[in-house]
Amino acid sequence: MTDLAGRFRQLWDEIAPIGRDPRSGGYLRYALTEPELRLRDWFRDQAARRGMPVTDDGNGNLFAWWGDPEAGDAVLTGSHFDSVPHGGAYDGPLGIVSAFLAVDELRTAGVAPVRPLALGAFVEEEGARFGVPCLGSRLLTGALAPQRAAGLVDADGVSFAEAWGGPPAGARPELLGRFAAFVELHVEQGRALIEADAPVAVADAIWPHGRWRLDFTGEGNHAGTTRMADRRDPMLTYAFTVLAANKEARLRGAHATVGRVAVEPNATNAIPSKVTGWLDARAAEQETLSGLVEAVHAKAAERARRDGTDVLLTEESATPLVAFDGGLAGRLAALLGAPVLPTGAGHDAGVLAAHLPTAMLFVRNPTGVSHSPAESATDADCAAGVTALARVLEELACR
Amino acid sequence: MTDLAGRFRQLWDEIAPIGRDPRSGGYLRYALTEPELRLRDWFRDQAARRGMPVTDDGNGNLFAWWGDPEAGDAVLTGSHFDSVPHGGAYDGPLGIVSAFLAVDELRTAGVAPVRPLALGAFVEEEGARFGVPCLGSRLLTGALAPQRAAGLVDADGVSFAEAWGGPPAGARPELLGRFAAFVELHVEQGRALIEADAPVAVADAIWPHGRWRLDFTGEGNHAGTTRMADRRDPMLTYAFTVLAANKEARLRGAHATVGRVAVEPNATNAIPSKVTGWLDARAAEQETLSGLVEAVHAKAAERARRDGTDVLLTEESATPLVAFDGGLAGRLAALLGAPVLPTGAGHDAGVLAAHLPTAMLFVRNPTGVSHSPAESATDADCAAGVTALARVLEELACR
Repeated sequence: MTDLAGRFRQLWDEIAPIGRDPRSGGYLRYALTEPELRLRDWFRDQAARRGMPVTDDGNGNLFAWWGDPEAGDAVLTGSHFDSVPHGGAYDGPLGIVSAFLAVDELRTAGVAPVRPLALGAFVEEEGARFGVPCLGSRLLTGALAPQRAAGLVDADGVSFAEAWGGPPAGARPELLGRFAAFVELHVEQGRALIEADAPVAVADAIWPHGRWRLDFTGEGNHAGTTRMADRRDPMLTYAFTVLAANKEARLRGAHATVGRVAVEPNATNAIPSKVTGWLDARAAEQETLSGLVEAVHAKAAERARRDGTDVLLTEESATPLVAFDGGLAGRLAALLGAPVLPTGAGHDAGVLAAHLPTAMLFVRNPTGVSHSPAESATDADCAAGVTALARVLEELACR
Repeated sequence: MTDLAGRFRQLWDEIAPIGRDPRSGGYLRYALTEPELRLRDWFRDQAARRGMPVTDDGNGNLFAWWGDPEAGDAVLTGSHFDSVPHGGAYDGPLGIVSAFLAVDELRTAGVAPVRPLALGAFVEEEGARFGVPCLGSRLLTGALAPQRAAGLVDADGVSFAEAWGGPPAGARPELLGRFAAFVELHVEQGRALIEADAPVAVADAIWPHGRWRLDFTGEGNHAGTTRMADRRDPMLTYAFTVLAANKEARLRGAHATVGRVAVEPNATNAIPSKVTGWLDARAAEQETLSGLVEAVHAKAAERARRDGTDVLLTEESATPLVAFDGGLAGRLAALLGAPVLPTGAGHDAGVLAAHLPTAMLFVRNPTGVSHSPAESATDADCAAGVTALARVLEELACR
């Protein structure tokens, strides 16, 4: 183990127990709940140890500064503390812990920034508590109105404004204008780096993606007495559509998932009257994504005619392609000698990319699994991530 | 409209509003809740108007007697008042209302029973409140231990003993021994009488049927970032199995339904780690049913190998064939000139059939739909049902 891997492990172990569910081994670090508030205290403490003043943007996002927060032309790095239910340890916190260690690396090397360096901790990136992913970055950039955010409620009926202790400030263009670039380091959520045999990559894009609700309606009836020929069973149309979505995505090199379903009345001895499935679809190009969703809808409608059911497709959300700043991604890939890859997941970097040059670094995940306790990264790869981030920050902020 | 159809409508309208949900048009008549208690009061009132004393069996089942309750060799008819959630008006109550009107028909014709005639109202036939169908008849016959029934709880944690006002009495062999035959009139739950173009049929059997739980396990993962080739998605295996169950049932002339599903974590952007589906399967013969379930299991296991998932089949309940008394069914069919058909649904008659000669009469349902607000029967067909039941009771009790 290198010294840096040892220092990574030491700092990592400070937060590893916080919010961990001993039963699943996963994390329950929902935004502004006790575990996440402890992590925010830990953030302030780490910043204080390094003499870095902490500001907040009035929306729940924290920034620790090396250099003058008011000077402008600052380089921002960081990520988020919050998790999905029973999520992994690395998704989010790795980017913050790595940022503190990268500052230490620069200082040990005697390198100082010529423009301000800011470490960010964004609030509610996963959307697991209040339902809107990237809530903090959307507020900061004005992509989400503060009145709307204030009224979002969690499963217990607590509003974001109540959890945060007041109404959020909303868009902060003058603060946003002080950042010249954002680099988010994140654990990889797939297996591309395993196959590339590399510990770190640079992301160049977030795939266009969205959620579509498919409402299948038929005729509720008695499972025991209704002849097969007399049925209008929407579960059949649903099942066919699940398989069609999988097939159509594979044919296009895209991603399609039906991971959520609701059934009425959802009784063992009742043919359902209604089945609702949610299609999560993503592809490298918008045209491919649109073609995929259209094909799934067409297959569902064709099967519905055979089943005597109806299907209604509703787009619930759609996010276009986020192309990270091409110049920045290429520059960082050349600097690090790292592969370049796209990702299918949304991130705060995707929100900020509309406002300033943005890039992401991915650290290899030996399980390829994410949003699960099985998510992982070796200390050696995490150290490689810190080294890469330190080089990037030196390149962007210290020259 | 015949006079009898008019008398049916008049009596029917007395109970039609009780427990009706104005939103769905269906009924919420759960056993021993306010609407069902009102229907039980109505039963006592109707019996009193006809000079019929009412006894209860200590299990929640009510009996109104024409003749001496202690005499023995009695003929029993009746059904139940309770409904499934948002169920139809006819499933259950039609058999009780028709029984009172059949008594009126016999009396108008000057016919009196030579052995006692009992009208029964069984408790919790649907199992919608305490989870065990035919709870009342199972208690009466000893098929269910009273200690076990006492401890069954509803969704609010109220036990059957609390709802019923004390521990149930359990098996009553001396009471059961006083019944020589049971005839349950019921709305048809399928379309056979539409095709037979007949208002009334005699049932000769209840198909063997059961419930099997299918647990599909895979690997929970991120829907956006996990490549299709790297997935172990149990939703795919579930979907394939739903379609296979439908196909295998059709090939065998059997019934298969997957109307209930549970997904973990059931999130739009997560490949599920686990999907559980419940298979309801029924067939005319035990061998067909067993072959169907084995075929569905084999298809599921084959697909699971392709999907990298696992499937576990667990039998949750299995009810063998109930053949109603062949002599009685044939005698009633000949008497009425009515078609004979089997049914796929369980009934109190199926429970009592193990203890005494039992038969069922079905009244045509023009929608073929049951366990749904769309369940229906015309007043004319209900009058035909009353006429048929009166002839059966005259044949069995008055000669």
